[in-house]
Formats: sequence, structure tokens, C-alpha cells
Amino acid sequence: MSPNFIHTYVSVDCVVFGFDHENQLNILLVQRRLDDFPKEKQKKLPGSLILSDEDVDDAAQRVLYELTGIKKMVLKQFKCFADPVRASNQEDIKWMGKEYEHDIDRIITVAYLSLCKIDHKINSTKYDTVDWCPIDKVPTLPFDHNKIINESLTEIRKWIESDFSIIFELLPKKFIIRQLYQLYSALSEKQIDIKNFHKKISSFNYIIPLEEIETNVSHRAARYYKFDAKIFKKNNTKLIK
Amino acid sequence: MSPNFIHTYVSVDCVVFGFDHENQLNILLVQRRLDDFPKEKQKKLPGSLILSDEDVDDAAQRVLYELTGIKKMVLKQFKCFADPVRASNQEDIKWMGKEYEHDIDRIITVAYLSLCKIDHKINSTKYDTVDWCPIDKVPTLPFDHNKIINESLTEIRKWIESDFSIIFELLPKKFIIRQLYQLYSALSEKQIDIKNFHKKISSFNYIIPLEEIETNVSHRAARYYKFDAKIFKKNNTKLIK
Repeated sequence: MSPNFIHTYVSVDCVVFGFDHENQLNILLVQRRLDDFPKEKQKKLPGSLILSDEDVDDAAQRVLYELTGIKKMVLKQFKCFADPVRASNQEDIKWMGKEYEHDIDRIITVAYLSLCKIDHKINSTKYDTVDWCPIDKVPTLPFDHNKIINESLTEIRKWIESDFSIIFELLPKKFIIRQLYQLYSALSEKQIDIKNFHKKISSFNYIIPLEEIETNVSHRAARYYKFDAKIFKKNNTKLIK
Repeated sequence: MSPNFIHTYVSVDCVVFGFDHENQLNILLVQRRLDDFPKEKQKKLPGSLILSDEDVDDAAQRVLYELTGIKKMVLKQFKCFADPVRASNQEDIKWMGKEYEHDIDRIITVAYLSLCKIDHKINSTKYDTVDWCPIDKVPTLPFDHNKIINESLTEIRKWIESDFSIIFELLPKKFIIRQLYQLYSALSEKQIDIKNFHKKISSFNYIIPLEEIETNVSHRAARYYKFDAKIFKKNNTKLIK
């Protein structure tokens, strides 16, 4: 007898990060459509089974479009989650049966990271409710979605480590250095001295000071800066830094 | 009618890198067992369908053990390949039917990187033939294995960029700086000056000079070094370097 090979559905799930005005990382959560769930159990990561003629990256791009109405979002595949019991919860099985009209007992998922400016208007073509949720207030979610979110935090750090330009996807087009510092601090695992940070940043020729300062603030008005992607790309990356 | 969702087999494929005495990156290839293939068509990446009670990382660890006889090899999942036509070649379909005793028309695969010292004895429990193949001499392989190998080169660079200790998995326990330089050059996309390299390396306190030099060489005998993983781990990593 031949071994018992997995024959399964495959989904994509997307962790979309944003950075709010309270200097917190947020992620986008949607609501399950099943009516008989108590409301507090309905949140989940946006995702979908992939179609029979679809590649995974295309499926993730489709999910992001259905979620936000934005056509080309940056995205990065980060991990396939395939724990044999990740979809064995009875409520999850029931929900999948209703959502997909298929009996599904095992499902593997390919997880993606994406980034969105938090002020961008969200126009979902699929979900009634799409909400930003601060990363430290994420409730218990179905499947292994909490695990996926935990691992995505490590991945977003690695992503920015390997490509620092990514961090600017989370900031407004013009920003003050304090915002960049606070975002960097939220992403980093350890405390960074603000003076050293300023010194380091001022050595980066792709962070351009603008002729504009904050208005209507009670503290000393700070200068706005912008990120210049072209100058950034000219800087060569090396294996040893 | 509900959409046509993928319902499929899932495999893992492993790209195992080694570094040979001619200073070339090599990968491990195996041979297909189907007798009626001409021999030159039988090479492929080592891989397997995953079992119904198996997680993908466990499947990759199993493939690596069946391939080399080594129990715990470093491994890193790097990408899920899911092009709808990646397994539509007739010969590939025929081979899958014989190998797995299932009719398979679509298959997605999760690709892994691994590293092996090239002098390590290979004791495959599954394959009759396991060969090191220089990376620039890889023949045309089945499925999208050539594409997987191409992308794995970018991934191994990123891996070493994010964790430089990984490079020492490819070197003998004691090595000379020229070997490290040549391996680094093989992995890097651009030429590095050897003098700058020496200077940089000598600033790394985790590369320890030994009281031993080369013997029986026609050139000036070079000193051996070893890598100290404990000292390396003490060095903090930062987002901005």
C-alpha cells in the first residue's frame, strides 16, 4: 500500500501592518460571516482558499485587493503553515463548510506580509467589516492565526533589516524624525537611544529634509522629511555591512 | 456553484548547498528511479510528498535524513512554488504516478535550503545515487526545479546576510581565510577586494586564529582559523547596521 499522502486545500492568509497615530503597530482583521458565532469570536486574518488556476502570489494579491480596494500592495510571502491539526477545531470546520461549500478537514496556508499607510481609505469589495487592531490587543483568533501574527512580527523585522526602504511604506509621505524613531522602536526588540538614532539617520542621504515644519504643535515644531527611493536604490547592499 | 478551489498534493523540495575544493558552490541532486527515462533526464532535487499527519518542516527534515543519513541538518523554508502548470509535463505526471501510486495533475511544493560540509559522508537510506553538482553545471531538471535552484541562490545570500554564522556550515571546522574569502565571493554578487576582506574579518572576534598553519603547500603556508558560535551569538544584531 502506498503511504498516506496529504491531499488538501491550500489557502493564503495576509498580515497587513499599519502604524497608527499613537505609535502602535496595527494589523487588519476582518469578520467571519457566520451568523451564529458570538461577535467576539468572529475576527480573523483576511485570507482565501486558492483557486485551481491560481498561483499563491496571485491569490494573496487578490485577497489584498478584496480587503482594501488597493490594486498593487507590497507583499512578501513568509511561511507555509501546515500543522496537521491547525484546522481541526469544530467551529473552524463548520465555518469552512459554510464559507467554501466544501467539507474540509485539513488545510495548509501560505502566510503573507503586507504594509499599508494607516490613513489610506479601505474599500473592501468582500468584507463588511475591516478594522485596524493594535498588535497588543489582538483577540483569540481561529485556526493558528495568532501564531501566524506572532511569527509575522519576526518576519517584518527581518524584512526591514534586509530592505530598510520598506519602513517608509508605513509612514506618511512627509514625516518627522520622531515618527520614524517611534516606528523603528516599535519594530525593534530593544531600546534605541534617540540621539544615536538622529545621528545615524542624518548620515542617510536618502532621507531628505523638506522646507516645511510642523504647525499647530505645543512643542518645538519639527522639520518634515521625505524618503527618496531612487537614492536608496543606488546604495549598494553588501553581505557584510 | 462554489468556485473551483485547489485540492492538491503538497511536496517539499530541498536545495542542499556544499562548497567544493575548487571553490565552487555545489548542490545535491538525486536520480529518479523510473527505468525508461534516458539517464540524463533522471536528475532532480531531493523531495517528497508530505504525509497526511506531517508538518512541512518535518517532511523536509525527513527528506534530508533520507538523502544524507544526517539527523539534524540546518534548514530554512524559503518559498512555496505553486504555478498551476508546474507539474503539467507528461513525463513528470507519468513519473509521479509510478513513484507515488497516485494520479497527480497539480502539485504545490514548499522549497527548503540546507547546507552540508562537502566532505561529510553521504549515507542515503532512500536514493541509489546522490551526487554533488557544481551550481553552474546543473542540467535541465523536471518540474520547476531549475527555477527553484535559481531562486535558492538569492535566498542563501539573504540567509547569510541576516545570519553570517551560516556561512561556516559550508567550511571545514578549521579553515584558512582564503577559503572563507572564496566562499564569500562565490555567494556574493560583486567582486570584493581581498585586502579589505582581511581587514574586515580581522575585526570579527568570533573568527579565532589557531596555533596551526598549512603544511605541504607550495605557497606561503596560511594560518588556520575556527568559528566560535558562542562569541558570535553574544554580538547583538540590530535593524540598522
